[in-house]
Amino acid sequence: MAVYTHLAAEDLAALIAAYDVGELVSAKGIAEGVSNSNWLVETTAGRFILTMYERRIETSDLPFFLGLLDHLSERGCPVPRTIHDRGGAAFRHVNGKAVALIEFLPGVSVDHPTPEQARAVGAALAKTHLAAADFIPARANALDISHSARALAGCGDDALAAIDPALPEAARIAGQLANDWPRDLPEAICHTDLFPDNVLMLGDRVTGMIDFYFACTEAMAYDLAVTHAAWAFDLAGERHAPEIGTALVEGYQSVRPLAAEERAALPLLAQGACLRFVASRTEDWIATPADALVTRKDPMAFVRRLHFYESAGQTAFE
Amino acid sequence: MAVYTHLAAEDLAALIAAYDVGELVSAKGIAEGVSNSNWLVETTAGRFILTMYERRIETSDLPFFLGLLDHLSERGCPVPRTIHDRGGAAFRHVNGKAVALIEFLPGVSVDHPTPEQARAVGAALAKTHLAAADFIPARANALDISHSARALAGCGDDALAAIDPALPEAARIAGQLANDWPRDLPEAICHTDLFPDNVLMLGDRVTGMIDFYFACTEAMAYDLAVTHAAWAFDLAGERHAPEIGTALVEGYQSVRPLAAEERAALPLLAQGACLRFVASRTEDWIATPADALVTRKDPMAFVRRLHFYESAGQTAFE
Repeated sequence: MAVYTHLAAEDLAALIAAYDVGELVSAKGIAEGVSNSNWLVETTAGRFILTMYERRIETSDLPFFLGLLDHLSERGCPVPRTIHDRGGAAFRHVNGKAVALIEFLPGVSVDHPTPEQARAVGAALAKTHLAAADFIPARANALDISHSARALAGCGDDALAAIDPALPEAARIAGQLANDWPRDLPEAICHTDLFPDNVLMLGDRVTGMIDFYFACTEAMAYDLAVTHAAWAFDLAGERHAPEIGTALVEGYQSVRPLAAEERAALPLLAQGACLRFVASRTEDWIATPADALVTRKDPMAFVRRLHFYESAGQTAFE
Repeated sequence: MAVYTHLAAEDLAALIAAYDVGELVSAKGIAEGVSNSNWLVETTAGRFILTMYERRIETSDLPFFLGLLDHLSERGCPVPRTIHDRGGAAFRHVNGKAVALIEFLPGVSVDHPTPEQARAVGAALAKTHLAAADFIPARANALDISHSARALAGCGDDALAAIDPALPEAARIAGQLANDWPRDLPEAICHTDLFPDNVLMLGDRVTGMIDFYFACTEAMAYDLAVTHAAWAFDLAGERHAPEIGTALVEGYQSVRPLAAEERAALPLLAQGACLRFVASRTEDWIATPADALVTRKDPMAFVRRLHFYESAGQTAFE
């Protein structure tokens, strides 16, 4: 949550002139994105989000991410389209960094979703899965269960136990799950990170799904499982909100009914989803000094969800 | 440059409902302000800046700051007005913190001003001085030359020399200036922090002067001297841009001609202005670990300006 780069107004005006979007009226660096800098830009023609890719995202992946936005947007999904420059390019470079101009969408991210909101999010997710069916490029999930298992094992039990005595057990579950992982579920391009702060809403309506920079080819039911883990709990993962989870799955199935094998796999997929966040948060935890000014996200918030899904099995999704 | 507080969309919507500004459409935390959090808020009625006061600013000072915005705005200065709530209050509380809703103004902050832009800034500054003449409340300058001298002396020569061998000499100059400070110059409510990032411009036009949270009763010529030091140099204070300084003073005098004693005092006032930033930056430098994730501003950038004004005397302003 930061703006990592200072962009001079003069450079910004020159950049905007490369697009057919009128003249620069205002630009505010906004506190969104963890691996890129973002500005809310207003021109005489409208409002836009300018994203500068700072780290983690490879420029070679940008045609995939930006093309996906256009593909989903053209098919009526509430996804911001990419604004192409006068030469047709989806991204440009400023001071050696890649930047893209993206449609601004209204809406705010909810903290305490209602069942009606969760239902709308489930339906919107299913709609992107169907719309992505004919998106040609594929992209492997770099953060799949095998990666989570390796990452946690790589930390070592001592380092894990130093964070929390329950973490080494989570690492063992990850190793087991990597072996048992269901491999033949129907796939599509999936968001795989659809937390509430990546969804914009107005009332019960989803007005925007944003931050597709983890999008990859994955089992569609896994994407639903990620979204369930992200929405149907309090932040600390201590309290399950069954009415939210139920509404999310119902909303999803109102657009794309799950096959029997997808439904059967949900408890395992949800455990894998939890371990993906346990793994990344644990690595960040170890890499970030306790007195650093950035907030470390607690991996235990997803270890608690993991154990919930282990115990609850299918009932978590009913 | 940060958003220090997470504000739930639900709390935000409830807050907006306390004002007659339509319904919430969008809210983005913006990377502005060092002692407050800011959101660019869009409603069905327009755009606004929501400011949450986090530290340094006393709630008891808010009627002064927010009343000043209204006063200047009513008199045609390019200053955002305060939006009052349905009960007429200029600020409210959310989660125990004071918040104010402020008019959004277009424009961007320039990095490399042209003389025409500097001229417009000088004229806008003079206009606020004239408009503030009948603003009744007074507010002492907590960061006056006596404070700067005490703050630098309080660091001790060893700590100063550890930052830079030239800093103890700056501390001695501050002590001398505190004795020689001109006391009888005409005063008004002054911004006292009008750096380029506190000015919004569109082309050569000043569309907004923002962040009045250092505003206080001061010599008007001192405010011009601060603005000169802030605009007429490169960031490091190594290179004076005489055409910018000249245009700034000309623009100021096109609206409010300086009296002879104000003009005569400018070199001393500018040295005092530099020492105000040397003092605050030095204190921050000592308080902030070198490996902290926040950028420490180099006090030497203003020691260099200080020595420039010492040597140049009146010629700095011609």
